[in-house]
Amino acid sequence: MRTSLLKHTHVLRIRYSETDQMGTYYHSRALEWFERGRTELCRATGTPYAEWERRGVMLPLVEAYVKYLGMARYDDQLQMTSVLSMAGKASMRFDVTVEHAETGRPVCCGHTIHAITDATGKPIRPPGWVMELIDPAGD
Amino acid sequence: MRTSLLKHTHVLRIRYSETDQMGTYYHSRALEWFERGRTELCRATGTPYAEWERRGVMLPLVEAYVKYLGMARYDDQLQMTSVLSMAGKASMRFDVTVEHAETGRPVCCGHTIHAITDATGKPIRPPGWVMELIDPAGD
Amino acid sequence: MRTSLLKHTHVLRIRYSETDQMGTYYHSRALEWFERGRTELCRATGTPYAEWERRGVMLPLVEAYVKYLGMARYDDQLQMTSVLSMAGKASMRFDVTVEHAETGRPVCCGHTIHAITDATGKPIRPPGWVMELIDPAGD
Amino acid sequence: MRTSLLKHTHVLRIRYSETDQMGTYYHSRALEWFERGRTELCRATGTPYAEWERRGVMLPLVEAYVKYLGMARYDDQLQMTSVLSMAGKASMRFDVTVEHAETGRPVCCGHTIHAITDATGKPIRPPGWVMELIDPAGD
Repeated sequence: MRTSLLKHTHVLRIRYSETDQMGTYYHSRALEWFERGRTELCRATGTPYAEWERRGVMLPLVEAYVKYLGMARYDDQLQMTSVLSMAGKASMRFDVTVEHAETGRPVCCGHTIHAITDATGKPIRPPGWVMELIDPAGD
Repeated sequence: MRTSLLKHTHVLRIRYSETDQMGTYYHSRALEWFERGRTELCRATGTPYAEWERRGVMLPLVEAYVKYLGMARYDDQLQMTSVLSMAGKASMRFDVTVEHAETGRPVCCGHTIHAITDATGKPIRPPGWVMELIDPAGD
Repeated sequence: MRTSLLKHTHVLRIRYSETDQMGTYYHSRALEWFERGRTELCRATGTPYAEWERRGVMLPLVEAYVKYLGMARYDDQLQMTSVLSMAGKASMRFDVTVEHAETGRPVCCGHTIHAITDATGKPIRPPGWVMELIDPAGD
Repeated sequence: MRTSLLKHTHVLRIRYSETDQMGTYYHSRALEWFERGRTELCRATGTPYAEWERRGVMLPLVEAYVKYLGMARYDDQLQMTSVLSMAGKASMRFDVTVEHAETGRPVCCGHTIHAITDATGKPIRPPGWVMELIDPAGD
């Protein structure tokens, strides 16, 4: 089965609120950045994720993984690349890499897997318009 | 006009996730602690705040103020005292002080003011059961 | 006494991680946004705040205030204007307004007051290069 | 090689600040809870983690994983069990399970892997006093 791919790059800066006393970013912020990346990837498809939820399609997390690869500090500019793919019939996967925007030095990478559910949390097959966004060619 | 008072004390520890690179707690965490205090104060009245929202009474913020009084670090144990009062007919006020649990040295103090609204965000007069919690004597 | 003024505008989007179950943004996030604004204002002066700290000048919070003016939701684009002024001889003040980027509808406003300290937390008069940034005309 | 095990259970409540607009907790909070668990596990060994850092031993993250197993909401009381083990000669691993305190229904589980470094971030073999905490029997 061919799985469709969507890729998006987003640049952000580490906030002071994201640092910790070790002088780097607190590790859970990576998952907040991953979500920023998902938001921008969805917008790039033409249907912002806020619209997904208004249409009753939610993407609750099933699994999250982060590998920490290198130091990053307050105000560093990071470049984050997110790749969307289907992971089975009723779930999606985003693979993310984060690196220093200027040097390309790796910061972290990881993935999240999401169920596709209705507003009540019940798993659903992705509606046609979702499949259309992910795989416009339809094959 | 006499305003009713409710007072509650809660003890917590500063989390690593609440520190920043200055080596103290990141300042906005104080507002998250204040909310922990409100939650425990409401529970102490006999009706947890989660139950307030299930009954359709929300307390969105109108105003928040924090004064930072002294250093506090990761894993320090803090004692927080919250005092609830009415602030007008459709709003509530919590005054909070946070100090080191062992020494009593001040950490911060402040207040939050909350509208009383229904689930749609429309301001309402507090229902009888809320007034009863706040002022059991009814005067 | 004339106090010098610096003004900067920054645009951001509300992250999913910044929402809460009331369906709006969790109120303490406003202080995190204010900090983003300070960071960008400092960068606009030519000396990023990360460089301030490397030079041993810290701006720990003395006071923070937020007034909540209107609803804002996940993915809304916000425009934030920060104005820097001196607040006495060894402290600074940032006044901030946040509004919807498209409509100008107000979201919140507030201020933060910061001590000016060395790396050990001891209050200092701002060094010449700080005064120069804030008041290039020197009057 | 036998790896030593340490186990600790901690109870916490979901904060309002940890919720999101989906009505559950925002997923990255799990990693903040895991850290609360590590803090309490270290305290239970007799040497709080704050003391580890004062002695120049840091535990920066190498890897984090969370599996989301079931719904949990604001103010729910959660019971979190953390198990510490060595993961190679210069890294530690915490395995964590989080469940509803009353019912035992699963909420999430996962692990974190940490390098053991000095204050400059350089990997080190754990000092004797660390090994002593982890494996008092010394075998």
